[in-house]
Amino acid sequence: MFELKARDGLARIGILKTKHGSISTPALLPVINPHHMIIKPDEMRRMGAQAVITNAYIIYKDEELRAYALKKGLHSLLEFNHPIMTDSGSFQMYVYGKEDIDANEIVKFQRDIGSDIGTILDIFSADASYEEALKQVKETIRRARESKKYAKEMLLATTVQGGVYKNLRKMAAKEMAKVGGDVYPIGGVVPLMENQRFFDLANVIISSKKYIPIDKPVHLFGAGHPMIFPLAVLLGCDLFDSSSYIKYAKDDRLIFPDGTYRLEQLEELPCSCPICSKYSIDEIKEMEKEERMKAIAYHNLWQSFNEIKKIRQAIKDGNLWELVERKATFHPALMEAMEVLKKNKKWLEKWENISKKKAFMYAGRYSIHRPIIYRLHKRIMERYTPFFKDSVVVKEGDKPYSRNEKLKEIKANVIVDASIGPIPIELDEIYPVAQSVFPRYIDNETKKYVARIFKKFYNGIKGENAPMDYDLRKIISIADYQFGKGAGNALFNGEIKIIKSKTTGKIRNVYCDGKHVVSMRASDGFFTLKKEGGRRLHSYFPFTRLRVVVKNEAVPFIKEGKNVFAKFVVECDEELRPYDEVLIVDEDDVLIAVGQTIMNRKEMLSFKHGMAVKNREPL
Amino acid sequence: MFELKARDGLARIGILKTKHGSISTPALLPVINPHHMIIKPDEMRRMGAQAVITNAYIIYKDEELRAYALKKGLHSLLEFNHPIMTDSGSFQMYVYGKEDIDANEIVKFQRDIGSDIGTILDIFSADASYEEALKQVKETIRRARESKKYAKEMLLATTVQGGVYKNLRKMAAKEMAKVGGDVYPIGGVVPLMENQRFFDLANVIISSKKYIPIDKPVHLFGAGHPMIFPLAVLLGCDLFDSSSYIKYAKDDRLIFPDGTYRLEQLEELPCSCPICSKYSIDEIKEMEKEERMKAIAYHNLWQSFNEIKKIRQAIKDGNLWELVERKATFHPALMEAMEVLKKNKKWLEKWENISKKKAFMYAGRYSIHRPIIYRLHKRIMERYTPFFKDSVVVKEGDKPYSRNEKLKEIKANVIVDASIGPIPIELDEIYPVAQSVFPRYIDNETKKYVARIFKKFYNGIKGENAPMDYDLRKIISIADYQFGKGAGNALFNGEIKIIKSKTTGKIRNVYCDGKHVVSMRASDGFFTLKKEGGRRLHSYFPFTRLRVVVKNEAVPFIKEGKNVFAKFVVECDEELRPYDEVLIVDEDDVLIAVGQTIMNRKEMLSFKHGMAVKNREPL
Repeated sequence: MFELKARDGLARIGILKTKHGSISTPALLPVINPHHMIIKPDEMRRMGAQAVITNAYIIYKDEELRAYALKKGLHSLLEFNHPIMTDSGSFQMYVYGKEDIDANEIVKFQRDIGSDIGTILDIFSADASYEEALKQVKETIRRARESKKYAKEMLLATTVQGGVYKNLRKMAAKEMAKVGGDVYPIGGVVPLMENQRFFDLANVIISSKKYIPIDKPVHLFGAGHPMIFPLAVLLGCDLFDSSSYIKYAKDDRLIFPDGTYRLEQLEELPCSCPICSKYSIDEIKEMEKEERMKAIAYHNLWQSFNEIKKIRQAIKDGNLWELVERKATFHPALMEAMEVLKKNKKWLEKWENISKKKAFMYAGRYSIHRPIIYRLHKRIMERYTPFFKDSVVVKEGDKPYSRNEKLKEIKANVIVDASIGPIPIELDEIYPVAQSVFPRYIDNETKKYVARIFKKFYNGIKGENAPMDYDLRKIISIADYQFGKGAGNALFNGEIKIIKSKTTGKIRNVYCDGKHVVSMRASDGFFTLKKEGGRRLHSYFPFTRLRVVVKNEAVPFIKEGKNVFAKFVVECDEELRPYDEVLIVDEDDVLIAVGQTIMNRKEMLSFKHGMAVKNREPL
Repeated sequence: MFELKARDGLARIGILKTKHGSISTPALLPVINPHHMIIKPDEMRRMGAQAVITNAYIIYKDEELRAYALKKGLHSLLEFNHPIMTDSGSFQMYVYGKEDIDANEIVKFQRDIGSDIGTILDIFSADASYEEALKQVKETIRRARESKKYAKEMLLATTVQGGVYKNLRKMAAKEMAKVGGDVYPIGGVVPLMENQRFFDLANVIISSKKYIPIDKPVHLFGAGHPMIFPLAVLLGCDLFDSSSYIKYAKDDRLIFPDGTYRLEQLEELPCSCPICSKYSIDEIKEMEKEERMKAIAYHNLWQSFNEIKKIRQAIKDGNLWELVERKATFHPALMEAMEVLKKNKKWLEKWENISKKKAFMYAGRYSIHRPIIYRLHKRIMERYTPFFKDSVVVKEGDKPYSRNEKLKEIKANVIVDASIGPIPIELDEIYPVAQSVFPRYIDNETKKYVARIFKKFYNGIKGENAPMDYDLRKIISIADYQFGKGAGNALFNGEIKIIKSKTTGKIRNVYCDGKHVVSMRASDGFFTLKKEGGRRLHSYFPFTRLRVVVKNEAVPFIKEGKNVFAKFVVECDEELRPYDEVLIVDEDDVLIAVGQTIMNRKEMLSFKHGMAVKNREPL
């Protein structure tokens, strides 16, 4: 049902399959009022909507609509032959404080009218007390179990509630996972959004996401303002619904990337959407109410889809963190959420790509807490082996630092005191060291944080004299950083021949005893494993280090060069990260190919669809 | 020629009058290649272009174009009946390294073809040595003097050069002021832009702007990338020209608010301009070269005009600083420019509005260095008089702090240890104290900076016991803060009656001995002067404090309630800031009205056009 295509950490481009076609996530589903479709779903599709969402409760409560939907189907009712998700009325129950519909009945109804994704009738816990929220979560879980029986071929969205209580969110997510929902909405967040409690919102998302099956799409229910999209996607949300576009339009409010403006406050229209490039601000102000509302709704939708597109591009470029940090400057309450990301960097690092397409750009005091920097510091601390007894500190120069030939000749461990952290000269070309941009003036918190790490690392260097040529030190250090301590010696324990690029002078290929062991990528300074490299690492590292273990039935295909699909993975090294080089072995640990992961362990073992490892070279 | 309409510090909405109509600044003038108009100027006008710029040198060098322009005029050549500025070819001389045109000749030519704003043939100093740049500046000044003779009815742009040398920029600006140009381009910045030397660029702008006549529009020559617009406008630049839109289009590069993307890098089009909402990214990629270039040029122009509109809106809202701080997160090199702003906050404060329409929003570690905060700290330090011998520090609570009734009853100076600084409880409602939003987690630099100020202020409190009712303390403190030490006692030295709003409980009007002295504005917590208030301040403060002195010939008009135009101002208090309350007096210091400034002293004495002071109430 759901497949992973590309990613930037937990943020992912995925494909969600429904009866009426696929949705490429992250996606925004505009909310359609079946009574009054101000913009037709089909028109929205041209604006960027892959799917829409409507409220089954409203249809159910209207005799005419209900009869039509039951007879001709939901897709005919909305005149939309693409995926339609339905909500069950939970939010309405919450707002009106009474429940006038049966939980099973509304699920059956959604199924009967042909909804592609139907939602259980969960109980919306907003600012409920713990006891209350607990009761509500339990009832919601009970209903989900029941609903599952009636969903049949309809995908079922099993909403995770639990208020702001982390362990209730955890419990709810775990139980919903047992129920086996297809889509996992995170519910009850509208009041947090409305009160700009983005700190709490980030915590709610994380404590839910940690226990929601990783192979299932997550829907942040009711979070329709683009301001929150980048943060939510970064934390692994895949779907959004927006009624904001129309709610705001009714209230003469325009959505912009930096927030919402009342029409009366605006004297300029800093937008060039089909509405804003056609009408002047004064013309919009002078429109009749109904026409104006429609115009603003269009504008709001265009702006909302733009934000989703911006995020999708950022995932592909690998710079979504930057986008999130920038967005944080748009409101102090959004900046508070950065503290939550900082506290969770260890967890976030598990999903973090080995490298990104775009350089690491410093955007403020939270940049140093991005998971990729956490990893950099951790690996340098744990995996770097010094080559000399003495060490010297040098100031940061142009990148890569080894451009400065003198540094390579020093007969001591040369540690660059860089903005990004303590960098042994041998590691100056790996991502994000060479591919990072810091300003000359860095905030004091970052400076202090880095200084502390520098001190800890520098004081811990205890080398024995094993002087070596710089290039040899470099390839050993990179291998240790990338594959684990000892990898360098395992890979390069013979007569080494290093081939460099004639134009750039950079290392391209490394041969050992005449065999091609690894190639070095110009883009990120890491190695690509060749067959011989795979063999060497395989015999050096014990099972299951660096391995993905595939079912024996898949072996013949992999030997032919086919990629490894997640459903065939039986085990995987916990330390592997997305886009890592990997040894593909069969159930008896026979090496059959080298490849590149798309997923980490948890994902490989969860996903039923899609590629887990790209096959580089069968042995 | 140039008139000030609205402002946010040095950033201003102005009107520049030309023979072919007015330009509302800040404005972006797209560069038109007279050989090949890919987008017609008239079409650009519909996109937001109020004026265009073209190169007179290119026209001059082409026999056919020259003949046509001389015969039918420049406006006919470009088919554009709106303002056209012309450049003289300085940049071409710089790029090709030779000068093949006479400096007077090209000015005469611009005049003869009917250019609205012609440019002198300045010498472009980029990375010249000091000696070289000095020579070039001297020659440029010499040419400007000559050119002035030939400009006649054409507005003359006298370019300020001087490389990165502050005192050369100063000299150039001062000398150009003597020449009496109409528009002041800051030249030689293209190489700084191209090398992302935004730190140097900010310094170049400031050291030029400081000496360019404040009543003249400033043009940042060749800075066509929207990334730099907010910073440049904040520093007082009014005009931009852009050839980027087409240069980038030729190179398949698309302008976005966060930078420039190569078409091939893009997989999404996060834009809804008429191009991007019509075509998909793949359709654009598949276009023929010429069609594609044109499409991207359109997109780039839309994006560029959007940025200008965003800035115009921010000036009106008074939150341009926020926009600049946010933009700074878009590139580390832009963030470096924030250091320059920080260093120049004392100068920037002179132009800073008394209050703004929108609240002060913390956007990062530079927010605390905005001029409005510098002023807040300075005035609290210098103008606040404590009412008690003892002082207590209280933690920051909800705003305004005096909501907490207990704080008003404490018989000691109550100083709130707020994120924004040390705030005496009496000043809790003034802008930006009540109208500020900080996150719960503030960066350490801000915390330390504020703590230092807190300590300095708190240690300096030396009060004598003069216990008073909170409301009385409040109005005295606000008056002192707003008008200067002693103003409170001068205004409120009789029997005081305070009228409060029935709905909000806030002070609205203050009467002294039965006379209405001041009103308090709900929006920013400052006073509006009534006649009696004016009289009291007038007799308390010596000439010229709080005064704007107008020519006697203007007095009858002002007595009728007419506003004060800048050309009638003969003197003004140096301490007055934009939107300050002011005493309007005649040359003999007879008080004739109270009003509100639009300009500060320097501006009032420079501008020949436009309003300097809004007349509130003649006496």
